Amino acid sequence: MIDIELAPAPDSAFEAALQAAMDNKTKPVGALGRLEDLALQLARIQRSLTPTARRARLQIFAADHGMAAHGVSAFPQAVTGQMVSNFLAGGAAANVIAARLGVTVEVIDAGVAGEPIEHPALRQHRIGPGTANAIRGSAMTAEQRDLALRDGQALGAEGDDEVACFGEMGIGNTSAASLLYAKVLGLELEPLCGRGTGLDDAALARKRALLTEAAARTSPTLTAPQALAEYGGFEIAMMTGAMLGAASAGKLVLVDGFIAGSAACCALAMAPALRAHLCFAHCSAEAGHRIVLDTLGVQPLLSLDMRLGEGTGALLAWPFVQAAAGVLSDMASFDSAGVSQSDA
Amino acid sequence: MIDIELAPAPDSAFEAALQAAMDNKTKPVGALGRLEDLALQLARIQRSLTPTARRARLQIFAADHGMAAHGVSAFPQAVTGQMVSNFLAGGAAANVIAARLGVTVEVIDAGVAGEPIEHPALRQHRIGPGTANAIRGSAMTAEQRDLALRDGQALGAEGDDEVACFGEMGIGNTSAASLLYAKVLGLELEPLCGRGTGLDDAALARKRALLTEAAARTSPTLTAPQALAEYGGFEIAMMTGAMLGAASAGKLVLVDGFIAGSAACCALAMAPALRAHLCFAHCSAEAGHRIVLDTLGVQPLLSLDMRLGEGTGALLAWPFVQAAAGVLSDMASFDSAGVSQSDA
Repeated sequence: MIDIELAPAPDSAFEAALQAAMDNKTKPVGALGRLEDLALQLARIQRSLTPTARRARLQIFAADHGMAAHGVSAFPQAVTGQMVSNFLAGGAAANVIAARLGVTVEVIDAGVAGEPIEHPALRQHRIGPGTANAIRGSAMTAEQRDLALRDGQALGAEGDDEVACFGEMGIGNTSAASLLYAKVLGLELEPLCGRGTGLDDAALARKRALLTEAAARTSPTLTAPQALAEYGGFEIAMMTGAMLGAASAGKLVLVDGFIAGSAACCALAMAPALRAHLCFAHCSAEAGHRIVLDTLGVQPLLSLDMRLGEGTGALLAWPFVQAAAGVLSDMASFDSAGVSQSDA
Repeated sequence: MIDIELAPAPDSAFEAALQAAMDNKTKPVGALGRLEDLALQLARIQRSLTPTARRARLQIFAADHGMAAHGVSAFPQAVTGQMVSNFLAGGAAANVIAARLGVTVEVIDAGVAGEPIEHPALRQHRIGPGTANAIRGSAMTAEQRDLALRDGQALGAEGDDEVACFGEMGIGNTSAASLLYAKVLGLELEPLCGRGTGLDDAALARKRALLTEAAARTSPTLTAPQALAEYGGFEIAMMTGAMLGAASAGKLVLVDGFIAGSAACCALAMAPALRAHLCFAHCSAEAGHRIVLDTLGVQPLLSLDMRLGEGTGALLAWPFVQAAAGVLSDMASFDSAGVSQSDA
């Protein structure tokens, strides 16, 4: 496992100064809603009344899942590696959106099946050539899990970006995520099993039967580290470490959709103080994500009916962080602008 | 009034080619949800399978309302002009957000009370020194309305930006907007009257009584031009023209919150084909906006609990348009990237 040290919450003097700074900006109190919440969160993380949001990085973790052999996805397993090549060539949705929004993209091979992909820009952190088949036994060993968590922790802590986005690619990984949520949060499995990339009714019924079988192998609830080892995947375990690493390095973490959310759920279970660093960016169209967010008591920033992963939901929240930083750092106050305050 | 010519909808051959282009991108069909809808809308407007979104401009229309003398707002009327100065100095929320997101800002005096503000960057389109008191009589003459519509039309059509954002500033203008919605859409007035910039319960009750009195002056429903003349304001009438002008110039219009929405509602009543050019960016926290959007059959892109106006909600949708353009214009196809398609 990994050791995590997160900064304590700011003291009440900082909180009072922060709220006063926000309420003196030239706008009715609270009129910027969620944008104000985000600005306050960034200020608390940076311990600054004028927080910055100059740089964001997206790290995409890719890995394969032994379960994919059973047809839990509408796409063949080879797509994981093909999409890694697509990321490296800049042609995937995440690349295109990141480029438009000025976010740097890195691709990490956390354990794609088959021969290693050779590319100078691909970061090699292969834990193995895909996980074992989690329907029949543990997806990975405790050693593999710990290696994934530690590598992720180091990767997430890299760089001086104020904001960390994490994405994933792995055929079959909505299945792994559903199992993680069920075991770590103690939720009923079936409502958490959705169509993923586009299963039809028959394939969805088969997926549910397979995941029910996989869930029956272990206790109804597991600790997050146990659940990661039992159900995987390498990319989710590495992302779990990366979220913790980014937070310990003082970053705001934009949590993508259903799969990245399962990493956040595991990371929160391991270090509840992580919560102060997380912004849940997007509620996925994948069935079950709303249930999970409600269970966690989270209201996501966006609900755009997307269900792609790759970090696309997290990326779309980045401009909000930039705008939020601007509200605290650049807006005039009633005094400085000579604007009259409310009569109320 | 004004003459508007909007392009007809694309033909079925274009539609088929557009949907095929989208569905061949390297993602499961429909997996980018609302972002795909936005990309398709932009493509239809530009009649291009590779639409662009290089530039956006925010035009902020400011004007005063005779009704403000009755205390329908929590802020004094002088704030309209003070905020115009704040916009010109770059200190308001709209400036700061626009700067972070790369959007140009222009400020238009459509009729601020008092002496004209002298500033080289302020665009002078003053229809008058604020509207007349709409509780007792018409807010403006038919000539003033037509001038505001025509000036707005010309302003909205300016420039080669692909995307137009419109914002407003005018103490008392949630009152004008509530009356416009009630009269143009035939809705009950009271649920449309909210707290604006922050009225307490007593002030809200007073505002509702005043607006009920204002509404009783005229027929239960009015045409959009009639309603604009009766209830104002100059900034809303000018924004109505600007939305029509921007659409006739082939732009996508990002509709801000409650006030800008009342201009959109009037513009739609005057030219229903405008609908193809509108993206409703944000559902305001102002009571009544949800009712209006439901009545119009609109699902807004964002719901961030904001209630500021100035175009802030429209601005925050701009990065989505950039990302959406990228999806169609820059993403690889399954063929070009060598990615296998769904088994389904």
